[in-house]
Amino acid sequence: MAIQQINLQQVNQQIQQCIENCLDCHSICLNTVTTYCIHQGGMHIEPAHIRLMLDCAEICQTSANFMLRGSELHLRSCAMCAEVCDRCAQNCDRFSDDHQMRVCADICHRCAESCRQFSLVAA
Amino acid sequence: MAIQQINLQQVNQQIQQCIENCLDCHSICLNTVTTYCIHQGGMHIEPAHIRLMLDCAEICQTSANFMLRGSELHLRSCAMCAEVCDRCAQNCDRFSDDHQMRVCADICHRCAESCRQFSLVAA
Amino acid sequence: MAIQQINLQQVNQQIQQCIENCLDCHSICLNTVTTYCIHQGGMHIEPAHIRLMLDCAEICQTSANFMLRGSELHLRSCAMCAEVCDRCAQNCDRFSDDHQMRVCADICHRCAESCRQFSLVAA
Amino acid sequence: MAIQQINLQQVNQQIQQCIENCLDCHSICLNTVTTYCIHQGGMHIEPAHIRLMLDCAEICQTSANFMLRGSELHLRSCAMCAEVCDRCAQNCDRFSDDHQMRVCADICHRCAESCRQFSLVAA
Repeated sequence: MAIQQINLQQVNQQIQQCIENCLDCHSICLNTVTTYCIHQGGMHIEPAHIRLMLDCAEICQTSANFMLRGSELHLRSCAMCAEVCDRCAQNCDRFSDDHQMRVCADICHRCAESCRQFSLVAA
Repeated sequence: MAIQQINLQQVNQQIQQCIENCLDCHSICLNTVTTYCIHQGGMHIEPAHIRLMLDCAEICQTSANFMLRGSELHLRSCAMCAEVCDRCAQNCDRFSDDHQMRVCADICHRCAESCRQFSLVAA
Repeated sequence: MAIQQINLQQVNQQIQQCIENCLDCHSICLNTVTTYCIHQGGMHIEPAHIRLMLDCAEICQTSANFMLRGSELHLRSCAMCAEVCDRCAQNCDRFSDDHQMRVCADICHRCAESCRQFSLVAA
Repeated sequence: MAIQQINLQQVNQQIQQCIENCLDCHSICLNTVTTYCIHQGGMHIEPAHIRLMLDCAEICQTSANFMLRGSELHLRSCAMCAEVCDRCAQNCDRFSDDHQMRVCADICHRCAESCRQFSLVAA
């Protein structure tokens, strides 16, 4: 079952799609860094890359949770999530002929766009 | 996009379904307790109920993350997740004529069954 | 043992103190909302208050984790954490003659100040 | 401030010490794997080692959160945490002349013992 079919409360359809994009991005980043990148060596195991993938996974999870709680502060968590996902997408785009990293980059891009819709940048 | 379409590494189709069941259960429990139960009063805001819903949401997230990492210890996290989901499902089943709680109970039941397949109980 | 005695890598003494403030704030907010507020009734169980306490607990945990990973993006997570802690502190300050909520407010204030030192607000 | 000075509710002194041991173990494992191990190469970046360090960090966080919520299910989360910490300690003990890994092993051992006191293994 896709999360879209779940009966969430106080969450409209657009937010529900954003939650799903965050959970997808969390899942692909955490899975890719811990089961793929660390087996590849080279650029894939550069410390900054590994940290950024873990950062992205975690902020996506946190951002999804703010929306799931119906918190008004999701405007802030979405803003931060969009920024981290943008960075992670750019970073993954460097691996130009690596299918798994390109999938990762695409999902990060989509999550960033989705979160940006609901973002409020701190004044 | 449902997580089934994501290109996860080192995760077979059954585990991928279990990850999705955990993320669904995490989502419905966290959302229901923080946007629905706390508005209802009565049995819905009994402290033990609120804690159990939060416990269930968190262990489902943790269990999904163990599987996403391709960790061999997911046999333990799935065992614990199945047990907590069973308890949460039983607890939600008490609210017999409440649609949202019944949805919650169903998703907890499904997550528990799914995790039980991959469980190893400590000797 | 206080975390100050732990041998953290790539984390200077000020960051280490900030990590500890975040973990303290996470601990007091999560504990207070789930074991104290939900037993009190009245203002203590207003949905917006419960959600904010849970938001604060989670972003403090996330912010600590960004620092523990030595991530350069901790400048963003600290900024967001400072903002959420400020809100939570203000919210807890409304319970003027409640000792537990005053303790909570104090720890939120300290965490906010500590995180603000390491904050970079998005341009 | 060490967490012992925090005014936790419904948590006795022994549980409070266990929470602190879990938070210490979470902190040292997450910090060590992401800022030290991935810079070392060799045995330090073996995929199974990295996953186990991340598993240990996460279950310690989850276990601390169950105790902070005053959940009766902390008997299960402590059991699982003890088991994962034992494995992680054994794994870190293999790096016999590496100071950082020995610190990690010691903190994992202490957390495992502490959690074992509050453990109930599933029947």
